[in-house]
Amino acid sequence: MQLKELGEFGLIERIRQATPRGRGVRIGIGDDAAWLDCRNRTFLITSDLLIEGIHFNLKWTSFYALGYKTLAVNLSDLAAMGASPAYLILSLGIPVDFRVEDVEQFYRGIRVLASRSGVALVGGDTSASTRFFINACVVGHSAQRPVTRGGAKAGDDLYVTGTLGDSALGMKLLKERGARAGNRNHAYLISRHRFPSPRLTAGATLARAGIARAMIDVSDGLLQDLTHVCKASRVGAVIWEEALPLSRAYRTAAGKKGLLYALTGGEDYELLFSLRRRDRSRLETIGRRLTVPVARIGTCVPAREGITVINRRGRPQALSTAGFDHFRDRR
Amino acid sequence: MQLKELGEFGLIERIRQATPRGRGVRIGIGDDAAWLDCRNRTFLITSDLLIEGIHFNLKWTSFYALGYKTLAVNLSDLAAMGASPAYLILSLGIPVDFRVEDVEQFYRGIRVLASRSGVALVGGDTSASTRFFINACVVGHSAQRPVTRGGAKAGDDLYVTGTLGDSALGMKLLKERGARAGNRNHAYLISRHRFPSPRLTAGATLARAGIARAMIDVSDGLLQDLTHVCKASRVGAVIWEEALPLSRAYRTAAGKKGLLYALTGGEDYELLFSLRRRDRSRLETIGRRLTVPVARIGTCVPAREGITVINRRGRPQALSTAGFDHFRDRR
Repeated sequence: MQLKELGEFGLIERIRQATPRGRGVRIGIGDDAAWLDCRNRTFLITSDLLIEGIHFNLKWTSFYALGYKTLAVNLSDLAAMGASPAYLILSLGIPVDFRVEDVEQFYRGIRVLASRSGVALVGGDTSASTRFFINACVVGHSAQRPVTRGGAKAGDDLYVTGTLGDSALGMKLLKERGARAGNRNHAYLISRHRFPSPRLTAGATLARAGIARAMIDVSDGLLQDLTHVCKASRVGAVIWEEALPLSRAYRTAAGKKGLLYALTGGEDYELLFSLRRRDRSRLETIGRRLTVPVARIGTCVPAREGITVINRRGRPQALSTAGFDHFRDRR
Repeated sequence: MQLKELGEFGLIERIRQATPRGRGVRIGIGDDAAWLDCRNRTFLITSDLLIEGIHFNLKWTSFYALGYKTLAVNLSDLAAMGASPAYLILSLGIPVDFRVEDVEQFYRGIRVLASRSGVALVGGDTSASTRFFINACVVGHSAQRPVTRGGAKAGDDLYVTGTLGDSALGMKLLKERGARAGNRNHAYLISRHRFPSPRLTAGATLARAGIARAMIDVSDGLLQDLTHVCKASRVGAVIWEEALPLSRAYRTAAGKKGLLYALTGGEDYELLFSLRRRDRSRLETIGRRLTVPVARIGTCVPAREGITVINRRGRPQALSTAGFDHFRDRR
């Protein structure tokens, strides 16, 4: 069945019926606005836009994976504040010749991660569109003051969760070889690209312990997001290539590109955070509760020293960093 | 200057600087998420999507008017719940060859209405896109239980604020004659289309008085939105054409189309609500505080009687109602 047969209200009704009534949702899908409990007297909200041909390509992603990832990237933003997610508001522009089954697969991907992370879909909007696009808005809570990008000081250690570059390398493999790309390493890298893990537990644990001074999620590539932290915190940074955490699959598959994807690849959805040097032992103590390994990859320096990457031979490396800019670059 | 020259981060920085720091905004634009006070332990959130070529046409609207209207339609959703708005989260997909000045005009339209209605822009997302589109998400508060679409009972009176059909007739004039369309009536109707007035005071006052039993904003046309109320409330309705509130400009300009736009036109952003018959006098008492006239246009009947429109000769009229459906119809 095509979407134009089901109709807008038919689609909304299907979504409503497929959506569990979440805790604290007084009025969810189906009215002019949603009415929600607010556990504490503050809440957090974040919004992300994903557009076909820009943020994703339907040649290389399933609708299910796209739904999953849509929510994951928003949860990652909340994780980077040390917050826990609660509600999702989702707006979709959908080409009229899309199949309803595909749209339902998309929502299934959303629901799987939503249920796993305690998120209730509470509203949104849909419209016909020439290209498929998605706007997701997530509301969350934090028991303490959220961790911003702006709290790092010269002398702080810089840490990152998980491993870097897997997602960008996975995307490259997808483009070159398609989703069926043979070996186990490739499958791992592609799954890191398609099903990123928002580091909610790590983010909330670091915030609760009060030791993360600045935090951001690595979505545009390590160097780009590090630049955001440095700018907001008015510090510089030194990064040691030797210390960058890489998966075994990455080491095997990266080949001549070496650390390119780990430094500038993007879509890692790991957390980059700074820590007082004297809190190293406290980080070790809470380490297991983060549910993901962390690696110390550098240090903050005075702003005038800028950002330096030290290569494996101990030499500062020339940077062609910079990040993906939606208005300047074309993927 | 074109947007691709300014760049994404440049644009965000400009918006941030142009945005007043709203009350209760602990962290606004510029971090991974915004951190907000929640005055009561509940809040409301609504989201609306506007797409070039579907919801608006840049031939017939200025960027300023488009910004204004983007916020107005979201505020209207909150008004229909009896809520007051507080925060706006805005996502934009923008063609790279748009002029920065135009985008700034858009935000100026947003800010004018935001400042007038006590709304703080607190975040969002931007991306390149082939077509211009907008997703706006508004969070609001309500001192009492919000008024839904589902509370009308057979025997209730049906009321509407303001006048109906102006906006749709204004759009027709815009299409036929362009924005400079001559006389005062035309100018009035076009301005009703371009600068709708969200009925925030009326909605909140009706909710606070506890007399509106069901409420919706008329965005898809009276009969379509009435259908939503009837479905959610499990009632039918009788509407008297004679009682429909029309502006003098509408009466003059509608010509042979008569009540067509008032019944099915859409984009009125007036409130349709139901009331116990015995609360008529209470409505009169609070009437002035609504800041907009209200008209009794019909009554709720048992669901099995469906929806009937009684024409001026007292005859039930055949309905070719129905609503605009984004996936079925093309404007």
